[in-house]
This record gives sequence, C-alpha cells and structure tokens, in this order.
Amino acid sequence: MSNQVITIQLPDGTQREFLKGVTLTDIAQALSPALRKKVVVGSVNGTITDLTHPLTTDAAIMLYDASSKEGITTIRHTTAHLLAQAVKRLYPDAQFGVGPVIDNGFYYDIDLPHSLTTHDLQKIEKVMKQIVQENLSIQRREVTRLEAQQLFAQDVLKLELLADIPNNEVITMYEQGEFYDLCRGPHVPSTGKLQHFKLMHIAGAYWRGDSQNRMLQRIYGVAFASKEELADYFVFLEEAEKRNHRKLGKELGLFMFSEEAPGMPFYLANGQIIRNELEAYLRRVQTKYDYQEVRTPLMMNQRLWEQSGHWDHYKDNMYFTHVDHQSFALKPMNCPGHMLIFKNSLHSYRDLPIRMAEFGQVHRHEFSGALNGLLRVRTFCQDDAHIFVTPQQIEAEITLALQIIDEVYRVFGFDYTLELSTRPADYMGDITLWNRAEAALENVLHRLQLPFTVNEGDGAFYGPKIDIHIKDAIQRSHQCATVQLDFQLPEKFDLTYMNEHNEKVRPVVIHRAVFGSIDRFLGILIEHFGGAFPTWLAPQQVRVIGVADVHEEYVQQVVTALQQEQIRVHVDARQEKLGKKIREAQLQKIPYILVLGDQEKEQESVTVRRYGQQALQEKLLANFIAEIKQAIQQKSL
Amino acid sequence: MSNQVITIQLPDGTQREFLKGVTLTDIAQALSPALRKKVVVGSVNGTITDLTHPLTTDAAIMLYDASSKEGITTIRHTTAHLLAQAVKRLYPDAQFGVGPVIDNGFYYDIDLPHSLTTHDLQKIEKVMKQIVQENLSIQRREVTRLEAQQLFAQDVLKLELLADIPNNEVITMYEQGEFYDLCRGPHVPSTGKLQHFKLMHIAGAYWRGDSQNRMLQRIYGVAFASKEELADYFVFLEEAEKRNHRKLGKELGLFMFSEEAPGMPFYLANGQIIRNELEAYLRRVQTKYDYQEVRTPLMMNQRLWEQSGHWDHYKDNMYFTHVDHQSFALKPMNCPGHMLIFKNSLHSYRDLPIRMAEFGQVHRHEFSGALNGLLRVRTFCQDDAHIFVTPQQIEAEITLALQIIDEVYRVFGFDYTLELSTRPADYMGDITLWNRAEAALENVLHRLQLPFTVNEGDGAFYGPKIDIHIKDAIQRSHQCATVQLDFQLPEKFDLTYMNEHNEKVRPVVIHRAVFGSIDRFLGILIEHFGGAFPTWLAPQQVRVIGVADVHEEYVQQVVTALQQEQIRVHVDARQEKLGKKIREAQLQKIPYILVLGDQEKEQESVTVRRYGQQALQEKLLANFIAEIKQAIQQKSL
Repeated sequence: MSNQVITIQLPDGTQREFLKGVTLTDIAQALSPALRKKVVVGSVNGTITDLTHPLTTDAAIMLYDASSKEGITTIRHTTAHLLAQAVKRLYPDAQFGVGPVIDNGFYYDIDLPHSLTTHDLQKIEKVMKQIVQENLSIQRREVTRLEAQQLFAQDVLKLELLADIPNNEVITMYEQGEFYDLCRGPHVPSTGKLQHFKLMHIAGAYWRGDSQNRMLQRIYGVAFASKEELADYFVFLEEAEKRNHRKLGKELGLFMFSEEAPGMPFYLANGQIIRNELEAYLRRVQTKYDYQEVRTPLMMNQRLWEQSGHWDHYKDNMYFTHVDHQSFALKPMNCPGHMLIFKNSLHSYRDLPIRMAEFGQVHRHEFSGALNGLLRVRTFCQDDAHIFVTPQQIEAEITLALQIIDEVYRVFGFDYTLELSTRPADYMGDITLWNRAEAALENVLHRLQLPFTVNEGDGAFYGPKIDIHIKDAIQRSHQCATVQLDFQLPEKFDLTYMNEHNEKVRPVVIHRAVFGSIDRFLGILIEHFGGAFPTWLAPQQVRVIGVADVHEEYVQQVVTALQQEQIRVHVDARQEKLGKKIREAQLQKIPYILVLGDQEKEQESVTVRRYGQQALQEKLLANFIAEIKQAIQQKSL
Repeated sequence: MSNQVITIQLPDGTQREFLKGVTLTDIAQALSPALRKKVVVGSVNGTITDLTHPLTTDAAIMLYDASSKEGITTIRHTTAHLLAQAVKRLYPDAQFGVGPVIDNGFYYDIDLPHSLTTHDLQKIEKVMKQIVQENLSIQRREVTRLEAQQLFAQDVLKLELLADIPNNEVITMYEQGEFYDLCRGPHVPSTGKLQHFKLMHIAGAYWRGDSQNRMLQRIYGVAFASKEELADYFVFLEEAEKRNHRKLGKELGLFMFSEEAPGMPFYLANGQIIRNELEAYLRRVQTKYDYQEVRTPLMMNQRLWEQSGHWDHYKDNMYFTHVDHQSFALKPMNCPGHMLIFKNSLHSYRDLPIRMAEFGQVHRHEFSGALNGLLRVRTFCQDDAHIFVTPQQIEAEITLALQIIDEVYRVFGFDYTLELSTRPADYMGDITLWNRAEAALENVLHRLQLPFTVNEGDGAFYGPKIDIHIKDAIQRSHQCATVQLDFQLPEKFDLTYMNEHNEKVRPVVIHRAVFGSIDRFLGILIEHFGGAFPTWLAPQQVRVIGVADVHEEYVQQVVTALQQEQIRVHVDARQEKLGKKIREAQLQKIPYILVLGDQEKEQESVTVRRYGQQALQEKLLANFIAEIKQAIQQKSL
C-alpha cells in the first residue's frame, strides 16, 4: 500500500500526484525549496493543519507563510509555547493555564510562587532566543485521556482543561525538546521559525477569569512576520501612548475618575464642552432626519426587564435597587422604555416610520480589571434610537440610518467598513421576514455602493444587523455604530399598528446608534485627534495674549468681538513672559493663539498662530473672525 | 377676690381695666357689639386663645376675625370638628384619626367600615349645615389622662394619640353638643360661626402615613372667610384644572408615566423639545456668567455619602445598589461629586471664584401617595451649581447669583419674592463667619433694592440662605430657586486653596439653583402658560395648511424657508376640511397657523393666525420670518 498515489490540488488550483504519506512540507519542497523555507502552516480541505501531517487521501491544500493571517496566527501560538518552555527551564515548578493568541501576539497564564518582574521578562526572552537557536522540531502526538492524565498528573490547571475536552474528541499534545503541552495546534514545524517577537508586560489574571479563583501571572508578548513589522509596532505603540486618552484627559482637563465611583467618568469643564458639542451636533442632524427625541427613566421595575428578555440574558451585568419594596433595575439599554412610549398611543401605518431617539445614560457592570478610561466604563450615554417601521419600510429606513452614519463619520474624518451579520442557527421568528430583511440589507449596501463583508450566521437571534467599524488616525479599528433589525421586541411588547386594511399588525424595530457610547466615542476622538481637536470641538478655541499691559484695552476689544460670535476665547493675562504663554497655549493644543501688540492695535488686526503650523499670519480682526466662524460652522478638520 | 380688676392692653395699644375673669368675647363686646359678632379667636400675650377663655391677670390681647390668618385657620380647624360631628351623627360607629388644617381648608381621617362615596359627602354636608343652624356653643375642658382614657375607651386611634401627649402637658377636650374631641384648640365659640365651607373629596390615607398601618378614609374640605372667597376659590379651581399640567401633558404629548417606573417621567417628543430649550437657554446664560459645566456619575460609594452627611440626614430618601460587593447610592444631590472635582486639583486664590454647574439627574424617594405629575417626582434634573469662593467674594457672588435668577425669571414673566433665612439654634461653624455672611446677604438684598422677608433662625445648620418664590399666572407661589451659603461641606471634604500669604485656607461654598428641578419647573411652566408656550419654547412653532392640493408646492416652499431658519414647522396635509385643520392646530396651542392659498402664492405671502388672537393678518413671507425669528430670539411672551 505504501506506493499508492494520491492526487493533491495545489494552491493555484492545479493537481499533482504524490505518494500517500506525503507531508505539506514535502509538497512545498517539491514546488520550490524557497517556498518550503517560507511556509509555516497549511490547510487540508479547508482545515488548518501542521506542515508535518502526513496526507493519506486525495485533498486540496493551501500553504501559508508568515505574511498571511493563518501563518502569523500560528507563529503567535507557537511563540506562546516557546514562552512556556523558557519559563519552565528557568522555573521548573511553574504550572500553566491557557496560552492563546490575541491581537498582535499572545499571552500565557502561569502559576508560579515567584513574583515575576520586568527584569525576569528579559531573562525569559533570552532563553526563548536560545531555544530558537536550538531549532527544536515540534511534534504533534495523539494521546489517550489516560496518557494525558498521567503526563499532567502534577499540573492541576492542565488537568482541569483536560476534563473539559469532550469524550468524543481526539486529545493531542505538542512536544518540542523537553517541553510538551496539551494543545489542539497547529504549530510551526520547528522553533527556528520563530524570530520577531518580544515580551511586553506582566499582569495578574484570575484562573478562568473568575475572581473566586486564584490569581495567576499573565505574560503578554507580541510576534510579527518580519523585523520591520515588529519595529513598526513599537513606533505605533509610542504614537498610541502619545495619544493615550487617559493621559491627554488629565493634561487637557477633560475628565477624571474617582475611587468613589470606579468606571464612572466625571467630566471636567473642558470635556463637558466637547460632550455638549457632540450631543448638540447629533441632535441637529437627527432633527434634519425627522427623529423625535425622548427621555426615559434610569430605572424601571424588574418585571419589565423580564418581559424584554434582559433579565434572562443580561442580569449579571445589571445593577438593582429597591423602590416600594420591589426590585428595580438601572437600565442597561433604552429599548424597553421606548417600547413603552410606542405602546402609550395608538398608531396607524400613516404614522410610521417613527424615529425615536434618546441620549440615554445606561449602566452596565464590568469587572474592575476590564475598565479602561473612557473606552470601557460602567456607565455611558448612548445615542440610541429605535425606528418603528412597516416591513415595506425596512429598506428605506436602513438607507437613511446608513446615511446619517456616513454624514456624521465624515465630519470626524473617519473611514469605515461594514459587516453584515445574517441569520444564526438559533434565530427566532418568521423565516420569510428574515429572508426579506436580509435581502433588504444587502440591497441597501449594494445600492449605496458600500463595500461590506458578510458574517454568515453571526446576526442576533432577534434579527440581522450591520456593524460599522471606523479606522482612527493610527489605523486602529473601533466598532461604534450599529444598525440592527429586531423582530422579537415587537412580539415581546405586543406592539401593533393598524395597516391599510384596518388590521392590527406588528411593526419591525430598527435599533440604531451612531456614536454608540458618547463616552467611548469621545475617548476614541481624543486619541484620533491626539487631543488637537478641530476648532468646533476644541474646549478653548482662541487664546489671546497681549504683548504688554498697555495692550490690555485692545485685548479686551478682541475678546468681546469673539465672544459676541459665541467663540470660546480666553485671555492669558498673567505676569509671565510672552514665550512661556505661547508655549503653554500650544501644550493645551488650542487651535488659534492671537498675539496682540502695537501694530495689531493700530491695524485692528491679530497675529495668528495656528496650532501645528509654524508660520505666523497677521490678519484683520474682521477677517480672522470670518475665518474661524467658517471653520466652526463647516466643522473643518 | 371676684371683684379684682385686671389691666388689659387692647389691640390698638391702649389699656383698659376689666374685672378678673373677663373673656375675650366680653372685651370685644365692650369695644363694640359689631366687633364681637365678627371676631372668631384671639390671643393673650401672643398665645392664640379661645374667645371664651377667662382672663385672670394683666395681659395684652389681640382679636381676630375671619379675614385674618389666625381667624381663618381657627375656622378651618373648627370646621374639621364640625365634619367629624356630622359623620358621627350619620355613622355612629365611625372612629377618628387626626383632623388638621391645610391650605384653604382641612381634612379628617376616619375609620369606618362603610366606604364613603361622593353622594355621602352631600349627606354629611347637609348635616354639617344643620349643626351650624343649631349654633352649638363650643367648650374647652381640661381633663386628666384617666378621664381622657375613659372618654375614648372605644376609640383606639384617639387612645394612640393620647399616649403621645407628654405627661407634663395639659390634656384638653373640646365639646359641641353631643360631640367631643381630644384637641389642643383653639376653636371658634360656636358652630354658628361656620358658614362658608364645602366638602371636596375622599381619599385613602394610611394611619400615621405608614403603609404598614390600616387605611383610613380622608375627607377633604375647604372653608373661607366669605361667600365671595369661597366662590372665587371654585373659579380658581376651574382655572387651575384647565391648566392642570398632567391633563395638558397628555393632550399636548409632553410626557407620560408608566407603572413600571412610578414617579419617574418619560418625556415624549414635544416635552423633550421644551426641556432641551430650557437647558440650552440656561447653559448660554451660565456661559455668559463664566460658569464651568461638569457632569458627575449617578451613583457613588456609600462612604462618600457618609462623609458628606447625606447618610445621616437623608438615607431614608436614597436608593442603594451594589457595585463590587460594596454599597453605592444613587445621588440625591450633586454636591459631593462637585467637591471631589474641586479636590482633584490644587487651587490658588487667583482661581476663585470657581462656578461649577451641572444638569444633574438626581433620585429621591417619595411616598407613592405624595407623587404629583412633574411637581413631585422620584427623579429629576437639577440645574445645580456650586460656587467656590473666598470669604471676601461672598457678596459679589451672591449678587451675581441673584442677577442670573432675575434674568431667567423675567424671561418667563415670573414675579418673585425673596426670603432670607438666618442662623438657627443648632448652627455649626464659626459665628464670625456667620455674622459676616448674614450681613453680606442682607447687604446684597438692600443694594439690589430687592424687598425680602427674614425668617429668623430658619437657615440650614451649614449656612444662611435666600429662597426665591415665584408667582405663577394664577397667583400660586412656588419655591424654585435658592442661594445657600455652606461653611460645612468645605470642612467635611477638607477643601483648601492657597491664599495671598501662601497659606492653606478653606473656601466657602455657595449652592445655587435657578429652575431647581427642570422637571418641576416644566410642570409649573405648563400651568403658568396653560400649555400655550411662548414661541421659543413651543414644541411646534408653526403649522402650515394649504387651502387645496394645488398649493402643495408653495406650502413646501414656505416650509423649507422656515426650516432653514431652524423654525419648528409642521404641515397638515391630511384630506380634511380647512376648518377642522385650523381648530386642531388651535387645540394644540400652536403659536402661528399659516394658511396658504392662491393669493398667498401669488404675493409670496402668508396669512397668519396668531394663537389667542382673532384677527388674521396677511404678511409677506419674508416679513413673517423676520417677525417669528425676532419673537424666538427675544423670547417674547
């Protein structure tokens, strides 16, 4: 049987015969030795597979190098094993939890009496490099449950993970030199393939994310396809740190946090100005699109949350209190309140669509460890809207919702991508409605010529949705806006309207958010703009500095003229040197600094220093006012 | 001894001798028989006293008729007894709780198996009138506790009240005919003095206001000094009912309530427009006065409320929840949050005053029976501000606070009165500071030439205050704005700033609200304007009606022109008669109705029907736009 031949379909679609037992490495070598050197993992009939796996039947294969998503993911996964091996060499009593791949790298959770320091990371990294030099080959091995239990008899965490593997599943081990790990794989064929990695930091992590369990030590690392990519990543980190919204939030007086309310932002004067501008802007846009704004209570009776389904699906993230001896929940979402408003009056098909919007403050519990400035909080203001439509109106309303999102995102200079998520296996409701709705969403995206990806089966059980991902100035992706169809809430709240034939029928609900969370959006904006906000958002738009005391009168004249146009202007009248005043205004990233001396007073002019520009420009005061008013009105970037 | 003479100082200040044992009735008779007929109660050395009480020592007296506060209060009190007597005649098994005087009248709580109806009220009133005819004399009698216990042996409620009377207090009874009641008095001398009363309605009331106790039946009544006053009161009630904000709130689509959140308003589209206008307006005014707006979390750790003193004084009205296994309270006030913001950075005397404002949503528990539309709710938005000042700045900042209040109240056409409340017996802090602060407040009121009354000793323990009472269109008084000095919060939060000598010293805090509660203020505004809001607040400012379909294009042209000016305009394009459309727009109290036909189209004009005016006016469209823009900008009434 060993001389039997199998037919392999190659990545380019051509077919070629190989002897049974051939590996992906062999095939790569047969295609070109250069290719063999580059590939790190492959796939067989669509299943990602080790290069060393012998093929025994006809198959279609793919080969991946480090530049592919499959390749780099495998490298990161194997680098996690490499980390564990190095730790074990240095600390033989170390035990291991899980070591998954994450964005840009990996981590491994370690149970170790010795408390690791940054210095230890350097030692570990050195040992990792040494194991790379050793170029140990990496072997997959199938084991019985009993073998596995014996191999990990001393590793309580691994035994727990082992117990979670279903009985009908093959249990596999990966070995490299003296190190072995319980793992599904796949992995690169040898440790020599791991080159461009770096250990980043250590953090505490509860075993299985449960604060009732013991605290492990988590080592984070990154790994990339090339030296250049690794270097670029550190440049990116430095840029991101400069833009860190928590740092800028402090420096620019935007917001603060307190131990008395962890995860709940306090907006300081400058931050509140930006919030108010964002809210006022979206309110104007929504008015243009014929939305009705409402405001609903922050807490409602528990039975309402049972009716809406939040109790079943979300109660662990909700805060509860008591009113008149009954349990009330702080709202984690605004939907049920809006359903009550819809139910409060009778509706005819002529009244639809009803576009109901709220700037609704919601509360959702997060683990304290998960909190992250404004990006992950326990309370935030949602720019929430529910659009009540007839089935015939779905397409038109989705179009309008995407238009609002487009209009708003352009203002901030955000590019964005769209993802359409379709019917999941556990969908609820009428399949005809689902089909019609999914077709409607696709139609809209095609008609608007918006490129999108499809996440098959990734919709909510209550309806398909479109998620919008924005890219910020340093190319990070954030999901903010969403447009979701909902067939279930109208059922749960027994919503109806009278159709053309005077029959009571169900409306469809569209959930829609543009900013998503105003708080998180503000956090993203701070980093996107690196704190140098466009003039319309800047807490201080103009700083006025007189050259000497004698110019005070003219300074006041300029300030009054600007204030009359509702421009946010401040004077620096301290007894400090001009240069210092200018530097400080620049550190505050104020869009316009006006310096006023004899010449300006005589000419009724201002000397303008635009943030981020070197050149000074002298302009007539009237012209400057016209210019800044236009910048504010047009929301220029 | 019976012929001994005593000296009585009469109401006009003169003195006159009477025989010992003389009653106030005797003195009134001696002064003039007409006076004797009019007086209902008196006072002896400043203590309010029955007219029948014999005087045994020299004294200064006053005599009150029904037109005085003392007189009408006594009449209302005796009318409550009259009510109880009538009920007892009709329902001998009735037992009685308390029967106090309230605004305009009185009530009595009754324990009775029979459920009273409006029809019963008429029967009771008839019996009351009959007892008035009988003109029973009313006698005060002092009794021992034992006598009282025997008299009320069958009245469990009265026995409970009796048990509450301290041992050193004289126990008194009042008798009229067959009826007697446990009462401190005083009362009018006979039932014939009771003339101008009316029973109003029945409500349930828990014994002693505690929902754990049994439910009693409460009968409400009113009583006035004259037939005219009673009639006026019913006219007033009718007017108030027309303006009832709950009724108008429903008719005009302003707000709703739900059983899922009792006492917590849901703002519908029209109500939210007004809220947003109010908030935006005050925000602009505050910006002009150099306030900084902030936003603080809705819940904070219980220990913060212990530190602020709210836990001690207010915890029964607070809602609590749990975060990370610790008790958190929903904020009933914004002060502690603002103190944390002040503490978040270092301050120099040069930074003061700091005027920190928030539109802060607070939650305060109220008994469900006390809830009343927007006027008494469980959650509301406070236009709260805390001004951090040096002691030297108190006067200037109080002046500015009163100026803001004056500026804002004028816009709504509110007259107002001021009350200065001074140091109470249990004051805390330095008496020098108190004296300086009280003098500062008085100085400001004098300098601004604002008339005010003084409530001696009625200030808060933490500082003196000025309360502002507005008078609405039907002369009802509401306390909304307040300006309070606070010497205690800066102590409790250890707030400091560096003074001119580089020493750490305490600032003083001024609490200030203008609307008080935006929700309650909106409720007052609805009633003040009877739902016919000034144009700048009106949810719909213009309704456009085309005479026929052929005018549709011109209708759209007018609408577009108005929308470009941010005017809230709606078209009534239904297939209905013109007259019906106009009537409906009037019912909605829309400030301007525009009717557009051939003539208007030709002339580029509009025919304007101003709300509340009969005359129609044809105007060029451009002139109408200029006119309404001016009305909005000037906030014309």
